Amino acid sequence: MNEKDGMNYAPAIQTAPVCKNGDFIFSAVGLDHGHIYGMTGGLIGAGGALKYVYDPDPNKIAEFLKLFPGAKVAASEDEVLNDKETCLVAGARIPGDRCPLGLRVMGSGKHYFTDKPPLTTLEQLDAAKNKVKETGKKYAVYYSERLHVECAVFAGQLIQEGAIGKVLQVIGLGPHRINAPSRPAWFFERERYGGILCDIGSHQIEQYLYFAGEEDAEVVRSQTANYAHPEHPGLDDFGDAMLVGKNGTSNYFRVDWFTPDSVRAFGDGRTLILGDGGYIELRKYTDVGTERGGDNLYLANNKVEKRFELKRKVGFPYFGQLILDCLNGTENAMTQAHAFKAVELSIKAQTGAVRLK
Amino acid sequence: MNEKDGMNYAPAIQTAPVCKNGDFIFSAVGLDHGHIYGMTGGLIGAGGALKYVYDPDPNKIAEFLKLFPGAKVAASEDEVLNDKETCLVAGARIPGDRCPLGLRVMGSGKHYFTDKPPLTTLEQLDAAKNKVKETGKKYAVYYSERLHVECAVFAGQLIQEGAIGKVLQVIGLGPHRINAPSRPAWFFERERYGGILCDIGSHQIEQYLYFAGEEDAEVVRSQTANYAHPEHPGLDDFGDAMLVGKNGTSNYFRVDWFTPDSVRAFGDGRTLILGDGGYIELRKYTDVGTERGGDNLYLANNKVEKRFELKRKVGFPYFGQLILDCLNGTENAMTQAHAFKAVELSIKAQTGAVRLK
Repeated sequence: MNEKDGMNYAPAIQTAPVCKNGDFIFSAVGLDHGHIYGMTGGLIGAGGALKYVYDPDPNKIAEFLKLFPGAKVAASEDEVLNDKETCLVAGARIPGDRCPLGLRVMGSGKHYFTDKPPLTTLEQLDAAKNKVKETGKKYAVYYSERLHVECAVFAGQLIQEGAIGKVLQVIGLGPHRINAPSRPAWFFERERYGGILCDIGSHQIEQYLYFAGEEDAEVVRSQTANYAHPEHPGLDDFGDAMLVGKNGTSNYFRVDWFTPDSVRAFGDGRTLILGDGGYIELRKYTDVGTERGGDNLYLANNKVEKRFELKRKVGFPYFGQLILDCLNGTENAMTQAHAFKAVELSIKAQTGAVRLK
Repeated sequence: MNEKDGMNYAPAIQTAPVCKNGDFIFSAVGLDHGHIYGMTGGLIGAGGALKYVYDPDPNKIAEFLKLFPGAKVAASEDEVLNDKETCLVAGARIPGDRCPLGLRVMGSGKHYFTDKPPLTTLEQLDAAKNKVKETGKKYAVYYSERLHVECAVFAGQLIQEGAIGKVLQVIGLGPHRINAPSRPAWFFERERYGGILCDIGSHQIEQYLYFAGEEDAEVVRSQTANYAHPEHPGLDDFGDAMLVGKNGTSNYFRVDWFTPDSVRAFGDGRTLILGDGGYIELRKYTDVGTERGGDNLYLANNKVEKRFELKRKVGFPYFGQLILDCLNGTENAMTQAHAFKAVELSIKAQTGAVRLK
């Protein structure tokens, strides 16, 4: 995505600070994807103090400083990695470069917080796992389509309260607008962006594992296609997959780059969660054909059939939990195993995909 | 379904008669599923004249006569089959018995119009195909979730007009309310109802083939489960499948018996049709979380994002086309190949399904 899209993804900061200013100092390195704004804003809102920013591209730094003018511009990545105060580095590099940066960050004794997908190959995953074991540091992942979307946060709370009984299946739709002229070259190079199922698919698999309470799953079928963009042979403009969880739940998701112009969001993202006592539908970024914006949750169970408008009503507990996890050595925001499992399955879906076109 | 559910499925009769009274005489044999009401009402609305009704159960006949008091009660199936005036027999027997009835009907020189699924095994399919070839008669199928739902009819028209470009994929959701105490014994006997992917799944596959313009497809993955009804071991309460069409389009559908009590319809049926120039969503029987009833179509393309309320605005051209096809030997309502292909794939999805639970 370009930076503008990234800005649209970043909701207003809601979370109350979990620590005093200066207790948790972080820096930003790698501004290729606009998600860095949501990541940075989320951490600041939760009490984090932003120190350095670094990117090889001065234009990206200039854009970043417009939103976060208090950041100091570092002269190099090393200046950030050698900084004694910085305890976490947030980064949104090109997907294929995210793991190498993470290894350097953890090697310098800092936690790493990366945009999704956190890495793009199983070799990188092994290296990341080993580095986590070796350093005891976190390789946290910004799976924004759940963590930074209030209706998705609320869905997790409803499921925990038993509002739809036992979750049986999750369907995810992750359409995106391609906006091709605004995209950098790497966006069309499969090795660099990771393929559609690894890139935007990783959001979907993360949500499935989370909502269904599954720790492991198998990709039983996956598909990709380039239906309508022959001028970009490296692009997957369509992908979908079916997964079966260890506990017998299942998942289907579709991702694509076909959001038409009239839709008032980057995509009509949906999550449909089927339980044995009801269901939830999330219309995350728009509610097509209505005047409403995003963050709509529809709940139907044996007692109620109801729509919730959730913008500015839930907040984003993830960021404060992540800060406290870093400070206290806990795993309340998201376990490392979950963060890695989601991308492991995304890579397997991508590499095992049948090509439809 | 019980007869009450069937009644809910039958929309108001809209189609203008295509022939004069008496030009097309039909009879009804086999009233096990309430769909017979929609089938009969649709044909009458399109100009058909109902002559006989027959079922071994006098209670079912009495119920039928409340809605269609002009029907003559036949003393036996044979009385109907021997009737020279009846040119089509409409029937909604137990799924496993639909093909044997159809063979007798076609063998008596009449067209057959059956509820879906039209048959439940590949052996029955072969027998039906052979009988069609031998007799030249039609084995027409009431795939009501497209043919008798106005927003679905309109979706077909929009696609033909190019409103969403080339169709790439279709997702179908066919949840149903189980209402177990009201169900007859056969509802829980897999051999008799055909399994969930064959029974309510056949609607979904028919819609996929139609909306995507595919003549053939392969079931690449299918699954069934009984998650929450151990007291009915023959029931599939969940099923889903992925298909890939000969032209490279694809389909995912889910069917289940988990509609919760609060939903104001037998199920929150949806169809999502993705084109390379936009998409359509059907919310067929309800629009969850709103005051609206069914027949909602949402269209988003590069020009408009719009909701259409379609109840009583489209009508059901299928029935008139079927009558004219019978009278003229044409195939405008639905080709025989399409009607059979949908159930062939449904049976293959069912028999090849992986059991999740």
